[in-house]
Amino acid sequence: TRQKSQNYSNRGMTLEEDLNQSNHYYVTNSIAVIHKKPTPVQIVNVDYPRRSAAVIKEAYFKQASTTDYNGVYRSRYIDFEAKETRNKTSFPLSNFHEHQINHMKQVKAQGGICFVILRFSATDEIYLLESEHLFKAWDDMLQGERKSIPKKDIEQHGHLIPISFRPRIDYIKIIDKIYFNRHSSL
Amino acid sequence: TRQKSQNYSNRGMTLEEDLNQSNHYYVTNSIAVIHKKPTPVQIVNVDYPRRSAAVIKEAYFKQASTTDYNGVYRSRYIDFEAKETRNKTSFPLSNFHEHQINHMKQVKAQGGICFVILRFSATDEIYLLESEHLFKAWDDMLQGERKSIPKKDIEQHGHLIPISFRPRIDYIKIIDKIYFNRHSSL
Ligand SMILES: [Mg+2]
Ligand SMILES: [Mg+2]
Repeated sequence: TRQKSQNYSNRGMTLEEDLNQSNHYYVTNSIAVIHKKPTPVQIVNVDYPRRSAAVIKEAYFKQASTTDYNGVYRSRYIDFEAKETRNKTSFPLSNFHEHQINHMKQVKAQGGICFVILRFSATDEIYLLESEHLFKAWDDMLQGERKSIPKKDIEQHGHLIPISFRPRIDYIKIIDKIYFNRHSSL
Repeated sequence: TRQKSQNYSNRGMTLEEDLNQSNHYYVTNSIAVIHKKPTPVQIVNVDYPRRSAAVIKEAYFKQASTTDYNGVYRSRYIDFEAKETRNKTSFPLSNFHEHQINHMKQVKAQGGICFVILRFSATDEIYLLESEHLFKAWDDMLQGERKSIPKKDIEQHGHLIPISFRPRIDYIKIIDKIYFNRHSSL
């Protein structure tokens, strides 16, 4: 039943890589402590060879019950999910799972700073959209409305993050503007 | 070279289970949103069978670069590690990795609430110890001093967490006392 076997580490993950680089920049420069959570895996079988590291021989991907990124910035809890689409005019809500939306609502209710980072890969535009706008679109979808967020709504309510060299995706600068009412000079 | 194969999910993890139950209680009662991070795994090979879920066929445990638990309580970032020992008179520092200590120092510098939950399994006593006391013991060890924290120091500087039914380990009550200067009536 083996259909294909794939080297997992070769998957293209540019948004993730850019965010990892940015988070690494933030932590090494004492700006913020934000990490990507490990991929959740259900481990079923492990081998313990005599002289070498344990080998996981059977495991399965589990659906994430939270978002991928969290951490601390200026005492505040930061929580976000990052997604990309090849669509040009809207962002499909199918990129999110109900658990993630529920998690973000819980975070918001607890006073955390919560948002999504959305990349339109065709144009390489990256937006920060505060979670309440995602909740609105999600809840509308559950009421039978559209299954995606129009790009013009993201342009209107979201914040375009300029791509730079280091950090590549300087989303903390946007957080400063929105939540701390200041312009950082990182 | 296969020495033994072990059903991973059968490992005894009572402190972890008790904390998971407590965190579940907190999130379902809108008290706090705190989760255990997934075990970090380096995935090397994945099979994609035609009609069923992807199977991870080769993977390795990676050393955690952060602590295991984090989340948000009353807008503040919460970060902790939980460890247990069978020792009766001291807590060995070998339970911690240098990365974890460094991570906790970064969290503290960023204004996060950071601590460890230490369980003495022989007597089933559980203490919350604020990270600065751990840093002190760790840095002393690097200077050639003892490789463990005496239990009497934990009793003096830490906070005994009473074990109850639901939540089993009500560490938020201690957080309230230390950081929010109030007695909660959860
Ligand atoms: Mg994800
Ligand atoms: Mg751990």
